Amino acid sequence: MSDHQDQTKRTDVNELGEFGLIDHLTRDFPLTQPSSLTGVGDDAAVIDNNGYLTVVSTDMLVEGIHFDLMYFPLKHLGYKSVVVNLSDIFAMNAWPRQITVSIALSNRFSVEALEEIYDGIRTACSHYGVDLVGGDTTSSPRGLILSVTAIGQGEAGKLAYRNGARVGDLICITGNLGAAYLGLQILEREKQLYLSNPGIQPELEEQQYLIGRQLKPEARMDMIELFVKNGLVPTSMIDISDGLASELFHLCKQSGVGAFLEESGVPIHPDAEMAAINFKLDPITCALSGGEDYELLFTIDPKDLDKVKYLPDIYIAGEIVKASDGVKLHTKGGNIHDLKAQGWRHF
Amino acid sequence: MSDHQDQTKRTDVNELGEFGLIDHLTRDFPLTQPSSLTGVGDDAAVIDNNGYLTVVSTDMLVEGIHFDLMYFPLKHLGYKSVVVNLSDIFAMNAWPRQITVSIALSNRFSVEALEEIYDGIRTACSHYGVDLVGGDTTSSPRGLILSVTAIGQGEAGKLAYRNGARVGDLICITGNLGAAYLGLQILEREKQLYLSNPGIQPELEEQQYLIGRQLKPEARMDMIELFVKNGLVPTSMIDISDGLASELFHLCKQSGVGAFLEESGVPIHPDAEMAAINFKLDPITCALSGGEDYELLFTIDPKDLDKVKYLPDIYIAGEIVKASDGVKLHTKGGNIHDLKAQGWRHF
Repeated sequence: MSDHQDQTKRTDVNELGEFGLIDHLTRDFPLTQPSSLTGVGDDAAVIDNNGYLTVVSTDMLVEGIHFDLMYFPLKHLGYKSVVVNLSDIFAMNAWPRQITVSIALSNRFSVEALEEIYDGIRTACSHYGVDLVGGDTTSSPRGLILSVTAIGQGEAGKLAYRNGARVGDLICITGNLGAAYLGLQILEREKQLYLSNPGIQPELEEQQYLIGRQLKPEARMDMIELFVKNGLVPTSMIDISDGLASELFHLCKQSGVGAFLEESGVPIHPDAEMAAINFKLDPITCALSGGEDYELLFTIDPKDLDKVKYLPDIYIAGEIVKASDGVKLHTKGGNIHDLKAQGWRHF
Repeated sequence: MSDHQDQTKRTDVNELGEFGLIDHLTRDFPLTQPSSLTGVGDDAAVIDNNGYLTVVSTDMLVEGIHFDLMYFPLKHLGYKSVVVNLSDIFAMNAWPRQITVSIALSNRFSVEALEEIYDGIRTACSHYGVDLVGGDTTSSPRGLILSVTAIGQGEAGKLAYRNGARVGDLICITGNLGAAYLGLQILEREKQLYLSNPGIQPELEEQQYLIGRQLKPEARMDMIELFVKNGLVPTSMIDISDGLASELFHLCKQSGVGAFLEESGVPIHPDAEMAAINFKLDPITCALSGGEDYELLFTIDPKDLDKVKYLPDIYIAGEIVKASDGVKLHTKGGNIHDLKAQGWRHF
């Protein structure tokens, strides 16, 4: 009998950080199956079926960590739990086809509450053309946990890994960044107002765009479609779930390169810019370190520039450089800083 | 803002039961992808890759529901979280190749505690020859949750579904049943003794077999190997995770048949028999309704009888009959009862 609380050595998980922790825990897991092409460390694992590639990604959303049901409608939560996984599959330049969904929930949730979650899951499945093929529904002593696994299909030679960026490649970003983070700040502020005065209903109308980016994010399937249409295969790609800076570091580390990022190239929505200023935050910091945008960060061979230059919603934001040149931010003010990887940390 | 507790209509999840609930929630999810061969409702989903079949199964283990860390060593927990998923893949007559593991845990767990869990996962990966290819590690406000997805490889024409049992087929069971449930009863009893007198250490030596069945279950890879060696393809198969009775009902329902189960054919280990009697429980009830044995229930065409008759650890325990004949238990005393599907309920 033991309570696992008084161990001889006790290292707090915060000391390693989320990514350090995953690296540490999974370092002694060699790939032994010939079908395991890539394992831990990219947006998704890649499995070979005689030339047909299966990509697999999984993510867990935990109440009180990733969402707050005070302002997160259950239907949106179901939708988002699918989207965050599909985003990982798209970030491999692959197509999601199936998902499995496991849900643990306490008895404070009713069948009707579960139906709302599944409504959101169904809407996401239908929008992205994926099938729900399995899962598990179980009880939890407390709280709601969703674990989704997405299974996709990729084409050999067309998958985009994190380790493919080469010196001279151009850094591209889709959509705009920081909006989901600012949406979360607004929801948190309104929650505090509501808690101190439950009589008033929150004023969220004005900030619908930002709140929508937090509560109902979309995965960039449209970009993957554009890539196919324009015959483009990114040299590397990652989805921006933990903030641009953190993702750029992943990509540089795995590709063995550095990066020169132009602040002027980092897309920020006017609503996000305004909200950041209202919160006395620096808009570029929100864009670099705010999480949950689910946009794509990718690199292209400069000879492919014409294939993206005129595409809507893709922004060229810098260049891949030698590893020894580090990961730098060239600010609008003309300064060059070391970029800090301050990702979205759940620990 | 809402707290999701005061909804107009509120149906308790207990009203539907675990399987009723899953049926209810997933009924409006049509399969639209040509590659989705089967979805929710079998041990695993089946995905087609140009003739190469991928089978996928997922299970979640929640602290306080599926395990109690007072007596469940973390390493064993890691091992078991893999085994329960592999068991589902074997139950499709397929071979697990990869797993993904997502873990949510509160800050009462240290890096060393996580290392123990991953040690167990690594041991299982190595024993069963599967690769860890992905996952997620995140924080939880409270407790430990493990969600594992297993990905396997199957051969067209050789997968064993739940819906393939035909009238006249023989019902087979591997190993023995009820032991894991009785192991759990012993651990629970010792926990209570320990809680009332923390000075004494529990006496578990005598019951190592039963406790081992609870804390370190194995999936029947050996049986799948035997099937290949003997050229046998079961007509239907399911793994026994929720009790034989419950699994037999699943199999009969999905195959549109009934069953005539012989009590004398249901394998019970002598230690389990003895422990049941000590607990004043009926051994056959433990075998029928105790969960977590991770043995296989399968049916064979009677012409294949010679292929299993002399195999160790496979027991012929009855026959598939017409649906209108129901699901019956023929007791050792010579009576015929309706079998009750009293599975292992987590709600």
